[in-house]
Amino acid sequence: MFNYNEQLALDILRSNAEKVNAELEKIYPEKNGIASVLYEAERYSLLAGGKRIRAALLLESCKMLGGQDCAALPFACAIEMVHTYSLIHDDLPCMDNDDLRRGKPTNHKVYGEAIATLAGDGLLTDAFSVCAMNPHVTGDCAAAAVAILSGAAGSYGMIKGQVIDLYGETHDLSEAELIELHMGKTGAMICASAQLGCLAAGFAPNHEMTEKLTSFAQKIGLVFQIIDDILDVTSTNEELGKNIGSDSESNKTTFLSFFTVEQAYEYAKRLTQDAIDSLDNIEGAEGLINLAQFLCDRKK
Amino acid sequence: MFNYNEQLALDILRSNAEKVNAELEKIYPEKNGIASVLYEAERYSLLAGGKRIRAALLLESCKMLGGQDCAALPFACAIEMVHTYSLIHDDLPCMDNDDLRRGKPTNHKVYGEAIATLAGDGLLTDAFSVCAMNPHVTGDCAAAAVAILSGAAGSYGMIKGQVIDLYGETHDLSEAELIELHMGKTGAMICASAQLGCLAAGFAPNHEMTEKLTSFAQKIGLVFQIIDDILDVTSTNEELGKNIGSDSESNKTTFLSFFTVEQAYEYAKRLTQDAIDSLDNIEGAEGLINLAQFLCDRKK
Repeated sequence: MFNYNEQLALDILRSNAEKVNAELEKIYPEKNGIASVLYEAERYSLLAGGKRIRAALLLESCKMLGGQDCAALPFACAIEMVHTYSLIHDDLPCMDNDDLRRGKPTNHKVYGEAIATLAGDGLLTDAFSVCAMNPHVTGDCAAAAVAILSGAAGSYGMIKGQVIDLYGETHDLSEAELIELHMGKTGAMICASAQLGCLAAGFAPNHEMTEKLTSFAQKIGLVFQIIDDILDVTSTNEELGKNIGSDSESNKTTFLSFFTVEQAYEYAKRLTQDAIDSLDNIEGAEGLINLAQFLCDRKK
Repeated sequence: MFNYNEQLALDILRSNAEKVNAELEKIYPEKNGIASVLYEAERYSLLAGGKRIRAALLLESCKMLGGQDCAALPFACAIEMVHTYSLIHDDLPCMDNDDLRRGKPTNHKVYGEAIATLAGDGLLTDAFSVCAMNPHVTGDCAAAAVAILSGAAGSYGMIKGQVIDLYGETHDLSEAELIELHMGKTGAMICASAQLGCLAAGFAPNHEMTEKLTSFAQKIGLVFQIIDDILDVTSTNEELGKNIGSDSESNKTTFLSFFTVEQAYEYAKRLTQDAIDSLDNIEGAEGLINLAQFLCDRKK
C-alpha cells in the first residue's frame, strides 16, 4: 500500500529542477552582442522558475530503470526548452493573449511580439541540437530521442492539440474532442518525457516497460489537465501565477463543461490511482508514484 | 574553362524540385478532421512552388560525392520545411508584415496569424522528425543531420540573423553587421544544405570535402542575398512574386547602403567566380557550378 509523502514529491521536483536549471544555464549563458536581446528573452522564460514536472518525470523514469542522470539530462533540458517555447507562443496576442505567466509578465509583454516569436522558435530549434548532441548516448539513441520529441511536439502532437484548442474557442467540443485536445496539447509531451527517460536508460520505444510508463504518463497528463481546469475556477491569480477564469471568460470547453468540480476531481483521483497501481510492483517507483499523487493534489 | 548553361541549371532545379515535392506530398498528405486547417496551411506554403534552391544544392552535393538520392531526400525535405517555416514567420505582422509571397497571399493573410504561427511551428518541428527517421542512413548520420540543421536554424544561426534584421529596422548596420545578418539569416541554411548533402554521401562534417563545399555554399549564399537586394530595387512585384521596394521603404540596411547596383553586381560576380573556381578540379561538379552561376544571373 502506497503512502503519499508530499515532502518527498517536493524534494524530487526541487532536486531535479536544480540539475536541469544548472544545465540550462550552461546551454544559454548570458551573452553580449547585437543579438543579445534574443538570448535574454530565451533565458527570461526558460529560467522563470517552472516546476519542471516534465524533466522530473523524465529523470525519475530513467533512474527507476537504472539509467544514468548524465544521459537523461540533455533530454530533460530539451523537453523543458520545447515546453517553454510552447508557453511563449501560446501566450502571444494571436493565441491566448495572456499577460501573466509563472507570476511574471509574459515574454511578448516584455520583449515585444517579434522577439517573443523568435525566442520561442529558438528554444524549439535548439532543443533538437541538445538532443542530437547528447554526448552520453549513441547516435541511434540520440536520433530516436529527436524522433520522440519532434513527434510529440509536432503537427500530429502538441500543435494539433493547440489547433483543436483554437477551434474550441468558437465551437463546442465533445468530450472525445476535449480529450483529443489534451492528449495533444499536454499529453503528448508528458508521454514523451517518460519515453525519453526510458530511452536514456537504454529501453527502446517499443519495449514493454516503455509502454507501461507511457500509459502511466498518459494518465497523469490527463490528470494534470483536469486539475488545471479545476484550478482555473477555484484558485486566484496570485496563487496560480497566471490569469485565472480565462477559460470561462473565453467560453472554452473544459472538463467542467461536462463535470462538476467534484466529479472532475473524483475522475482525476481515479486516474491517478490507476496510474499508481500500474507501477505498484516495480522496484524504485516511489519517485514516480509520489509525483503522480502530487499532480493530482496540487493547489497551483 | 566553365561554360554556363542556363538550361542545365533550370533542368537541375526542376528535376530536384520534382523529387522533393513528391516526397513532401507524402509527408503532408491532405487530411480531414478537426485539425485539418493546420495541414492545409502547412501544405499551402510548403507546396507553393518555390525554386527549392536549398534542396538542389543538397542533392547535387550528395550526387557529386557519389551518394544516393534516397539518403539525401529526407534531408532535402527537412531543409525546405525549415525554410518554409522561416518564410511564414518572417511574413507575420509582428515581423516583416508581408502580404505576398511566391505570388500568393502570405500564410497569415489566408489562415490568420494563429494558424500561420502554428503552421510554421509545425513545419519546423516535423523537419526534425524527417531527419531523425531517415531510413537510408545510420543513427549516427541522422543525429549529425539534426545537429547540423538545428544549429543552422537555431538561436546562433538563422534566428540570430533575423534578430539582427529586426535590429536593423531601427539602427544603421555596419557592413560587417550586414554580413553577419545574412550569414545567419540565409547563409547558415545554405551552408547546412551543402553539409547535409555531404553527410548523406558519407562525408563527416569535418571532412576536407565538406569544408570545401561549405565554403562554396557560404559564397553563393552571400551572392543570393546581394542579388536579392539588387532585385528589390530593380524588379517589379509581378516579376518577383513578392512586394518589392520594401527594404528601402522600411529603411533597412542592404548591400545597396554601401554599394551602387553596379558595384554590388560586380561583387556578386566575383564571389560566384571564386566559388566556381574552388570546385574546378572536382569531377561531377557541373551541377553545382551551374547552380552557382544561376543564382548570380537570376532575374527573380
